[in-house]
Amino acid sequence: MGDVSMNKPYFRELFHPKLVSPVFIEGLPGFGNVGRIAARLLVKSTQAKLFTELYSPFLPDYVMVNREGICRPPRYEFYASSTNKTGFIILTGDAQPSVDDITAHYEMCAEILDFIEKYGCKFIVTLGGLPLPQPAGEVYVAATSQKLAADFVEKGALLYGKGRIMGATGLLLGLAKKRGLEGLSLLGATRGVRTDHEAGLSVYNFLTKVFGIKTE
Amino acid sequence: MGDVSMNKPYFRELFHPKLVSPVFIEGLPGFGNVGRIAARLLVKSTQAKLFTELYSPFLPDYVMVNREGICRPPRYEFYASSTNKTGFIILTGDAQPSVDDITAHYEMCAEILDFIEKYGCKFIVTLGGLPLPQPAGEVYVAATSQKLAADFVEKGALLYGKGRIMGATGLLLGLAKKRGLEGLSLLGATRGVRTDHEAGLSVYNFLTKVFGIKTE
Amino acid sequence: MGDVSMNKPYFRELFHPKLVSPVFIEGLPGFGNVGRIAARLLVKSTQAKLFTELYSPFLPDYVMVNREGICRPPRYEFYASSTNKTGFIILTGDAQPSVDDITAHYEMCAEILDFIEKYGCKFIVTLGGLPLPQPAGEVYVAATSQKLAADFVEKGALLYGKGRIMGATGLLLGLAKKRGLEGLSLLGATRGVRTDHEAGLSVYNFLTKVFGIKTE
Amino acid sequence: MGDVSMNKPYFRELFHPKLVSPVFIEGLPGFGNVGRIAARLLVKSTQAKLFTELYSPFLPDYVMVNREGICRPPRYEFYASSTNKTGFIILTGDAQPSVDDITAHYEMCAEILDFIEKYGCKFIVTLGGLPLPQPAGEVYVAATSQKLAADFVEKGALLYGKGRIMGATGLLLGLAKKRGLEGLSLLGATRGVRTDHEAGLSVYNFLTKVFGIKTE
Repeated sequence: MGDVSMNKPYFRELFHPKLVSPVFIEGLPGFGNVGRIAARLLVKSTQAKLFTELYSPFLPDYVMVNREGICRPPRYEFYASSTNKTGFIILTGDAQPSVDDITAHYEMCAEILDFIEKYGCKFIVTLGGLPLPQPAGEVYVAATSQKLAADFVEKGALLYGKGRIMGATGLLLGLAKKRGLEGLSLLGATRGVRTDHEAGLSVYNFLTKVFGIKTE
Repeated sequence: MGDVSMNKPYFRELFHPKLVSPVFIEGLPGFGNVGRIAARLLVKSTQAKLFTELYSPFLPDYVMVNREGICRPPRYEFYASSTNKTGFIILTGDAQPSVDDITAHYEMCAEILDFIEKYGCKFIVTLGGLPLPQPAGEVYVAATSQKLAADFVEKGALLYGKGRIMGATGLLLGLAKKRGLEGLSLLGATRGVRTDHEAGLSVYNFLTKVFGIKTE
Repeated sequence: MGDVSMNKPYFRELFHPKLVSPVFIEGLPGFGNVGRIAARLLVKSTQAKLFTELYSPFLPDYVMVNREGICRPPRYEFYASSTNKTGFIILTGDAQPSVDDITAHYEMCAEILDFIEKYGCKFIVTLGGLPLPQPAGEVYVAATSQKLAADFVEKGALLYGKGRIMGATGLLLGLAKKRGLEGLSLLGATRGVRTDHEAGLSVYNFLTKVFGIKTE
Repeated sequence: MGDVSMNKPYFRELFHPKLVSPVFIEGLPGFGNVGRIAARLLVKSTQAKLFTELYSPFLPDYVMVNREGICRPPRYEFYASSTNKTGFIILTGDAQPSVDDITAHYEMCAEILDFIEKYGCKFIVTLGGLPLPQPAGEVYVAATSQKLAADFVEKGALLYGKGRIMGATGLLLGLAKKRGLEGLSLLGATRGVRTDHEAGLSVYNFLTKVFGIKTE
C-alpha cells in the first residue's frame, strides 16, 4: 500500500476520475454539522463515488468502529461526480483537526488545495453553519470577490459581511484566494449546538438550485 | 550507548529475540489500566523477557524513582516470549503521550509498527478498557475485518459496534490495518476511573484461552 | 503568485520601497489594542503605503469577511513612509499567534527581524499597552540600553523598570537586541480590557513628537 | 554575534572556562524555587563567573525589564567556578519551558547535556523542591545508581523512593543516566507554593558540606 508512515497527511487514491475543471465542494463537521450534512446529501443525489481517502496525524487519535465491529482511523473522503452540467469533487469527513492546533488547519488546507488543483479545480464552494440566535432557514454567502458575492445574493443568498468564518470552511476559501482560485462560502443559519438537519438541507437546496443539479 | 539525543523516539535493544511471525500484543495505561494489567499478567505467565526499551520526547517530562531511589525516564517496554504454539511480542509501558498531543500519538504508533514489522509481526492484538456504567466482566472485540470480529465473538467476546477506541489501543489497530496487517482490539468493560484489576484479569483470561496459553 | 503553500510564514511583497536606514515601528493587537491604534494613526498621518503582506500558519485559522462579503486570511501588514526627517517601516496586523504557541511567537519575530534587516533597519520601536489599575495617559519606556531609556525619559516618558513586556512588543525588542540592533518599547498605560483609543493616542502623540512628525 | 535566528536553542558563549571533569549543578525555577535559590547561593559563594547564556524559543515569549529599563529575553545561565577541590558548571535561569510543551523539555535537556559533555562533565547534581505537607528542612536524594543513593543517605540525605521528579530536575538526571553519566537529585522539602528560601538554604548547605565548599 506504499508509504503509510502517517507522519504527514496521506492521500490514498482508489481511482482517478476524469473531470474537466470540476467544482470543489467542501462540507466537513462544524457548527451544527451543516456543511457535512449538505455535502453528504450532494454525494447521494449526484451518485458521487469515493475516489480518495485522506488520513492525517492531525485528525483525532482514535479509531472509529462501525456496526460490524470493523475499525478504521478517522479520515477525509473525496467523492467525484458528474452531472450533465458540471463535474464535482466533494470533500467530507469524520472530524476536523483539534481547535488548538492552528498550524494543522493550515497544513491540511494546503494539502487539500494542492490535491484539487491537480484535478484542475478553479472554483471552490465551502459549506458550513453560521451560528445565529434565531435561524430561519436562510443561507449566507461570502466570496473571494465582490462580483461573486453579488451574483449569489442575486440568486437568493444573504450577504455575510463583517465577520469571520472559522476552520476549514473559512481557511480553504481564504487560502484558495491567495492561490488565485475563486469561490465562495455558503453558510446555513443554525443555532449550531446540535446537528441541524434543516440548516443542512437549506444549504443543499440552495446549492442544487444554483448549480442546476436535478434532485427527486 | 550510541545516539540518545532524545529528539525523537529512541529504541534501546537489549537483545534480539528469534521469533517466527510473532503475535504483537499491546497493553498500555488507559481506562482502568485494563490493557496494562492484562499485558503484565501475560508477561509473567509466559515468562516473557524484556528485549527493547523505547524512550521518547512524547512521554512525560518527569523521571520515575523506584523504591531504591534510582531514577529513570518513563518508557515503553517490549517483551518477547514463546509458548509451544505462538511467539509473542508484548508491549507495555509507564505512560502514554499527552492527550493534547495528537500527532505524538500518530508518530509513536508509526514507530512501534515499523519496529514490530521488522520482527515479522502480521497480527496484532491491542488491549484496553471500555468505559461502561455497569461493567460485568465482559470482553468486547473490534477488528480489522468482519470475519475476524465474528471469529472472536464465537470465542466468547461481545461485538463492539458503533463507537470509538481511544489512544494507542485504537490507533495502533487502525494504522496497522492501513499497512495491510490484521488484528483486533479486546476491551474489558470497566468503570474506568480507577485501576480495575478484575477487568484486566477478564481480558487476560480471554486472551490465554483463545491463544491456548497455559496458566497455573 | 509563487509559492503559497502556507506551511511557513509567507511574505507577499507588493512593491519594494526605497528607504535609507528606516526606523521600524511595530503595533500589533494586544493590551487595549494600544499598539495597533498608535501604529494605524501613524500609517494615516504619514500617508504610509502597504508594501508587504505577511501570511502565516501561526495566525488564527479563520478568514475575515469585510463589509462587501469578501474574505481573506488574517495577516500582518508592512507599510512604508518617508517624512522629511525619517523613513519608517510600520508593522500592524489583524491578530497575534495563539498565546499557547510560544515557539510561533519566536519564529514570527525572527522572520520579521530578518525582513526588516534586509531594508537596513537598525532601530526599532515597539508599541503596546501597559495594564495598570489607574491609567492616566502616561507613556512608559523600556529600551535596549540604559542610555536610550534615559534619552526617552528626558523626552517625557516614564521609565518602565522591573517588569515584563509580553508578546511581539517585548520579544521583537529582546530578539533585536540579541542581533545587535537598538530600540525601545513605548507602552501606553491602559486598563487593557477593552480597546483603549485614548491610550493609543497618547502613544501616537509621544511618537510623533519625538520623531518630529508633522500632524494636523 | 553569529546566527541568532532563535528557531532553536542558542548558546552564546562569553568565554571558555578551563575545567577538569567539572561537576554539573542545575537549579532552575520550580517547586518553591528551591533549586534556583540553592544554585544562586552556590554561584555567589564560589564566585562563579557567567560564561554562557542559553536563549530558546521554548522559553516564555516575553522580555524581562530590569530596574534601569533595559530589556532582554528570558534565558538560562551557565556559571563556572573552581574551588580547591572541584570545578563546577552551575546552571540557573529565569524560567522553564511551558508545562504543556513536553517535547520542549526533552529538547532543552538534550541540548544542555550535549553542552556540558563538551566540558567533560561526568557527574551531575540537579536541585529542586519536593512538595510535602509538613516540610522540616530535610533534603531528599534520588540517584542514577543504588550505590550513589546510599552514599548520600549516609551523608545525611533521606532516600526519595517510589515517586516522580518533575521537569528539568528529573529529566536532566534521567537523560544523563541514559548517556552513561552518573549523578543525583537533591530535593529540599517545601510546601512548594511560594518561593521557599529556607528550603533553598537547606539544599545549599547540604551541597556545600558534601562537596567540601568553604562558606563564611
